[in-house]
Amino acid sequence: MSKGRVCLAYSGGLDTSTILKWLILEGYTVVCFLANVGQEEDWAEVEKKALALGAERMVIEDLQREFVDEIVFRAIQCNAIYEDRYLLGTSLARPIIARAQVRVAQQYNCEYLSHGCTGKGVRFELAFKACNPSMKVIAPWRLPEFIQKFQGRADLLKFAAENNIPVSSSPKAPWSMDDNLVHCSYEAGVLEDPDHSPPKELWTRTVDPTDAPDVPYNFTIHFEKGIPVKVVTPEGETTGSVELFKLLNKIGHDNGVGRVDIVENRFIGLKSRGCYDTPGLTIARLAHVDLEGLVMDSKVRKLRDQFVTIEWSHCLYNGMYFSPEREFLENSIVFSQKNVSGEVRMSVYKGAAYTLGRKSDASNLYSQEDASMDSLETFSPMDTTGFIAIQAIRLEKYGLQKIKDGEPLSK
Amino acid sequence: MSKGRVCLAYSGGLDTSTILKWLILEGYTVVCFLANVGQEEDWAEVEKKALALGAERMVIEDLQREFVDEIVFRAIQCNAIYEDRYLLGTSLARPIIARAQVRVAQQYNCEYLSHGCTGKGVRFELAFKACNPSMKVIAPWRLPEFIQKFQGRADLLKFAAENNIPVSSSPKAPWSMDDNLVHCSYEAGVLEDPDHSPPKELWTRTVDPTDAPDVPYNFTIHFEKGIPVKVVTPEGETTGSVELFKLLNKIGHDNGVGRVDIVENRFIGLKSRGCYDTPGLTIARLAHVDLEGLVMDSKVRKLRDQFVTIEWSHCLYNGMYFSPEREFLENSIVFSQKNVSGEVRMSVYKGAAYTLGRKSDASNLYSQEDASMDSLETFSPMDTTGFIAIQAIRLEKYGLQKIKDGEPLSK
Amino acid sequence: MSKGRVCLAYSGGLDTSTILKWLILEGYTVVCFLANVGQEEDWAEVEKKALALGAERMVIEDLQREFVDEIVFRAIQCNAIYEDRYLLGTSLARPIIARAQVRVAQQYNCEYLSHGCTGKGVRFELAFKACNPSMKVIAPWRLPEFIQKFQGRADLLKFAAENNIPVSSSPKAPWSMDDNLVHCSYEAGVLEDPDHSPPKELWTRTVDPTDAPDVPYNFTIHFEKGIPVKVVTPEGETTGSVELFKLLNKIGHDNGVGRVDIVENRFIGLKSRGCYDTPGLTIARLAHVDLEGLVMDSKVRKLRDQFVTIEWSHCLYNGMYFSPEREFLENSIVFSQKNVSGEVRMSVYKGAAYTLGRKSDASNLYSQEDASMDSLETFSPMDTTGFIAIQAIRLEKYGLQKIKDGEPLSK
Amino acid sequence: MSKGRVCLAYSGGLDTSTILKWLILEGYTVVCFLANVGQEEDWAEVEKKALALGAERMVIEDLQREFVDEIVFRAIQCNAIYEDRYLLGTSLARPIIARAQVRVAQQYNCEYLSHGCTGKGVRFELAFKACNPSMKVIAPWRLPEFIQKFQGRADLLKFAAENNIPVSSSPKAPWSMDDNLVHCSYEAGVLEDPDHSPPKELWTRTVDPTDAPDVPYNFTIHFEKGIPVKVVTPEGETTGSVELFKLLNKIGHDNGVGRVDIVENRFIGLKSRGCYDTPGLTIARLAHVDLEGLVMDSKVRKLRDQFVTIEWSHCLYNGMYFSPEREFLENSIVFSQKNVSGEVRMSVYKGAAYTLGRKSDASNLYSQEDASMDSLETFSPMDTTGFIAIQAIRLEKYGLQKIKDGEPLSK
Repeated sequence: MSKGRVCLAYSGGLDTSTILKWLILEGYTVVCFLANVGQEEDWAEVEKKALALGAERMVIEDLQREFVDEIVFRAIQCNAIYEDRYLLGTSLARPIIARAQVRVAQQYNCEYLSHGCTGKGVRFELAFKACNPSMKVIAPWRLPEFIQKFQGRADLLKFAAENNIPVSSSPKAPWSMDDNLVHCSYEAGVLEDPDHSPPKELWTRTVDPTDAPDVPYNFTIHFEKGIPVKVVTPEGETTGSVELFKLLNKIGHDNGVGRVDIVENRFIGLKSRGCYDTPGLTIARLAHVDLEGLVMDSKVRKLRDQFVTIEWSHCLYNGMYFSPEREFLENSIVFSQKNVSGEVRMSVYKGAAYTLGRKSDASNLYSQEDASMDSLETFSPMDTTGFIAIQAIRLEKYGLQKIKDGEPLSK
Repeated sequence: MSKGRVCLAYSGGLDTSTILKWLILEGYTVVCFLANVGQEEDWAEVEKKALALGAERMVIEDLQREFVDEIVFRAIQCNAIYEDRYLLGTSLARPIIARAQVRVAQQYNCEYLSHGCTGKGVRFELAFKACNPSMKVIAPWRLPEFIQKFQGRADLLKFAAENNIPVSSSPKAPWSMDDNLVHCSYEAGVLEDPDHSPPKELWTRTVDPTDAPDVPYNFTIHFEKGIPVKVVTPEGETTGSVELFKLLNKIGHDNGVGRVDIVENRFIGLKSRGCYDTPGLTIARLAHVDLEGLVMDSKVRKLRDQFVTIEWSHCLYNGMYFSPEREFLENSIVFSQKNVSGEVRMSVYKGAAYTLGRKSDASNLYSQEDASMDSLETFSPMDTTGFIAIQAIRLEKYGLQKIKDGEPLSK
Repeated sequence: MSKGRVCLAYSGGLDTSTILKWLILEGYTVVCFLANVGQEEDWAEVEKKALALGAERMVIEDLQREFVDEIVFRAIQCNAIYEDRYLLGTSLARPIIARAQVRVAQQYNCEYLSHGCTGKGVRFELAFKACNPSMKVIAPWRLPEFIQKFQGRADLLKFAAENNIPVSSSPKAPWSMDDNLVHCSYEAGVLEDPDHSPPKELWTRTVDPTDAPDVPYNFTIHFEKGIPVKVVTPEGETTGSVELFKLLNKIGHDNGVGRVDIVENRFIGLKSRGCYDTPGLTIARLAHVDLEGLVMDSKVRKLRDQFVTIEWSHCLYNGMYFSPEREFLENSIVFSQKNVSGEVRMSVYKGAAYTLGRKSDASNLYSQEDASMDSLETFSPMDTTGFIAIQAIRLEKYGLQKIKDGEPLSK
Repeated sequence: MSKGRVCLAYSGGLDTSTILKWLILEGYTVVCFLANVGQEEDWAEVEKKALALGAERMVIEDLQREFVDEIVFRAIQCNAIYEDRYLLGTSLARPIIARAQVRVAQQYNCEYLSHGCTGKGVRFELAFKACNPSMKVIAPWRLPEFIQKFQGRADLLKFAAENNIPVSSSPKAPWSMDDNLVHCSYEAGVLEDPDHSPPKELWTRTVDPTDAPDVPYNFTIHFEKGIPVKVVTPEGETTGSVELFKLLNKIGHDNGVGRVDIVENRFIGLKSRGCYDTPGLTIARLAHVDLEGLVMDSKVRKLRDQFVTIEWSHCLYNGMYFSPEREFLENSIVFSQKNVSGEVRMSVYKGAAYTLGRKSDASNLYSQEDASMDSLETFSPMDTTGFIAIQAIRLEKYGLQKIKDGEPLSK
């Protein structure tokens, strides 16, 4: 009799194939699940393999649209960035994948969720716990008995041989990768030395800037309430969230835009080196930041930058998407974008993206007349005198105190 | 008899020449002051002109070193940036110039400070008030009698003709510029239309990326306590704050690095469009951010990013350099940089800058062993289980509440 | 012919009576306006006086309900407080009064708004500008010709005598007061010495704690979504926003609750000493803070405390109620209060307020079982081990670095 | 042969006596450690008991002075408070105790640290890990074998009887307590029902307000750089950090000042109800907040409140005293207090504390002349006009946008 039904996140690789077989040998019935969040995959091959190894069922779900609509666009709306550099590609996909796995588990009456992650599993499991607190998790790489059995790659290969698990003969890259619609990440292996530059062949989502076209490529992104709704290129117009995001990815790819190579602080307190290529989101974020310059109030922007952008980015990075604070922050994000509508003309060229111009009918905050030095409509130069006088009250006291303290500012 | 002695910020242009003459005609004795903060200028010509127009004295001071050491390096140390884009080039120079003008005024017994700014004068005057609260300011462009007399360029030219003020015959650029060691800014004129792209000939501090060399240029920046102390290029080593900053400017210039084109929020509540090319600081900031990834504690970094970086940048932008809050923030900046020592290998290529690698002996926070997935030294996978369980307590309650509210998260 | 119609904020006092007469003499037609925001006033007398002095009309509006519903309750929902002490009584009323004055001005076709404030007028005028940017403001105490004419109280009294303005014969308190439903403020005069204690007779809204009843008075406040909806006392139940707020005022008054005496930082950069008695809001705020302890998520609370509470309080204090940032913040306040429903038992006694207990059905965050040390349902002690191990990773590195630096933490 | 030497935090109670005996039976040599942080204790009795049970040594250290000087005064300097209510009494003592235990362990060559905490041990252990990362921790209440053996109080009593562990015959309070110089905390037991009011006899550090003297008691606290250095009462002057803190405790105690009863968010994500009486720190904090009103710059204060106060309080609460971020924050605290010198006159009466006045020679920020409405020295009323005009630019645009959007603000 089965010990129960497990919904296993299954990729077709050696690790999750081993786990699939091990779970079956342990007496579980296994429903395999694979999320399509835009990565490269031979979907039919994965299904064939899962069923061959004894899975009760292989469920593959295309989550690209909910990924873009619910999370990627939110990241764009708040200019999400982690530690000034990382656009959160992996973190953005995790909650979408985890929620879908819980849904599948519920649909097929599974009592358990399982995955092949080690440390990286934190984000998945936090999402599991929020999405269905009553579902139990089997994380083999944290079970003493499993770790005991599989102490290295040799043990995995031996088990594979004994259990007819096909092993890919193609040589593995000397780093690990995680691929989705937003980016591909590269870490571990040779990259663990933070002074070892990523080799040219590492990057999969962007051409090398030196190989990119010799002329800039120009296009326009249209936004409504902070969300990209149309991309206009010399070749035509593209709408539809996934479609236009893929187009931005292609533009970024072809022109080498969106590479970063950083050492970042992981949630658990360790530092980790990662390389990421994130073509479309890099472009979309820049355009969005630029449009906000034109239409967003300065005080709202400062509050949003200081609190919402940084906190939302940390929430996502730390696997706290399904949390009260993310919901709280997201309410602010959406509200802040009421007038962020307009279009931004962009250019990409050999690794960099530029803004060429922007316009909007949604906001009255920028006024060419006000901006002109010649116009005195809005306020008079004498008003500035009063403004300075009041602002200076505090500073004069500061200056006087410094003189009294023997440390005059005009030293 | 003289109405008193005025220290006038004098550039040699039509505006300040007019003011110089007007002050003399009004009965003041005028000491002219011009700060050398790294801009292009025919210094001898300016002096000649000032004296010819009747200035008692022309004082030119080279402030480049104090500019770099006291302010530019502080900006690098805190990754200063305004509204996600602007590196504050103009704002960084203002306090240095204003303080020097006060010093000169004190030295030559002036009772008044004067300048030729309109709205932009806010930053100067706030600094004047702090540096010497007892000194009075004459801001002609905010005096009704002056504005009355000079209602347009025609009035200025007429006054110039009547008073032998030489007028440059070279045509004026259709925008205004402000140049210093850090950047050149371009605004007003045709740029007031935010959808009017800056023409190729606008940029003075960077070559057009399409004209930059066809091969990347690599070099290394060494930092001590967050300050760049050495730049190593294929051609040799450069030390000395001004010298190495100029070298970074040259590297950025030659490779087209550091252009931004934005609409920003001015202190007084208006939006303004500005284009800036900031070659060296763009490169130095990127290298510094990168090094911090390797050596700075995650919690300190988040606090610093959220509070210090944003607030210091706003202080400077708003002309509040000489203020209690800037001093308070700067104390934090310096403290945060204790371990930010190491070197960053960089590459620039046709408009973009990249990090190639970094290393540091100053911090133990990054460990290749910890980063490796294979190492279980620091903590065991079972610890992660406990960590997740505790972190999930709050999230499970959230998920249960959502179920109770009829909005299950696994919808 | 009239120069136009002015809507004047008219209190019946010497200052605004003088302004009323002066405006008429200057050729304006004047509509007087007085807001009832809960202050003590002889309304009929004010009206009589205005009309006798030549006002075209006297409009008195009862704004108490919109004051409580739109602003006071929002202050309670976000625990508004300025500089840790001041509950913002004056600042809360200003936008309500200003908006009503603009409404009245619009209704009676006035082109001008006028008031008798000096510095304090900042809040009024910022609200005027936002509520109707096209309406012009006449602020006599900032007009050189008016200030010239009325250089002291003697000039006012002389003008009053010449123009049949009745002058109150009751002696003026040696400080100025501002009274509304929320509080009474006392400042200036003898209070300008910050070491001069407010005399016992100063306070008008609270009895002296030493004169309060000798037994505690207990009652219960019910909240829905952060708003007090019912107060239950030994004498019965009270609902209705204004009614229950008045009851809380009475409870606070009778028991001496809600006095503060502070030196605060005014918007314009000066410090000012103020005494405030704020009986009902002090009680309501305490009860609300307490209930949030029971029902609000910890991370949401920290974000709200750090950003929303402090920023909303500063907005109001600085007269920025009608602003994009206040709207942005308020959206967060309302969202944060979804589950802040329940009841809090309170006690007041001789100057202090206490919470006695609280309960709520709206949230599952507090659980008596979880709280119990004996329960191991939610997580096991072994989980704590893992939690500690992960949390300590960063701290161990810190400790090791300190040892290396020769400053061991266990010194 | 001994398994090694353990330094055990030993209180003399049933739990730690059981652990002491159990460790010995397991084969360890045990050095007992008890910190004197100001709690009530029969020190000789504890020592006698430890030695009788087989401890190699009993070390009792008086840590009161370092507790007050290094941590309590820092809390006062930054107005530390957790979730608006809790003055952190327990959290403040933990790092001092933990560090001393590590010191003692090092001194007596222990390899292990042990304690009798369950969940509460998080703060101790995080401090242990930072202070000496190489020392191992034995936390019996998280060891499966120990928990197995001691499943309830009956098991403990049985073990005590078998091992000659004396058991106190005095009935245990129906809640748990933690006592130190700063406060006594009460939680668990009957208090787990958050609507169960704390009974009158619970409080040990404050008299019931209704039993306090019928007349206010007045005194003055002198501060230097934010630290209380002298307390002047009708009975005389007290200096010395521990001495004056004890005096403030006595004043608070006698007048019933410093009780709070809250539900708080614990680090691990659960809510917990706690009652605390914190007499001296409540008074000192109020006085310090008040003095800052007089002498601290407004912008520094806002930054400090928003970032430093809240973050330092969270650090301490979460057991992160020995951390890079606490060190970073503390650097800011100390810097912010440069001018916080002066004296505050206070009054306490039946549960409440009041400020009566304050003065300082250290700062020029408050000026009686500036504060006066009659003075026009600092700025003219016309300056205010300009200030308002500039501040209103943004608000007018907001108002106009609202009109355009069909939602006029003057609705």
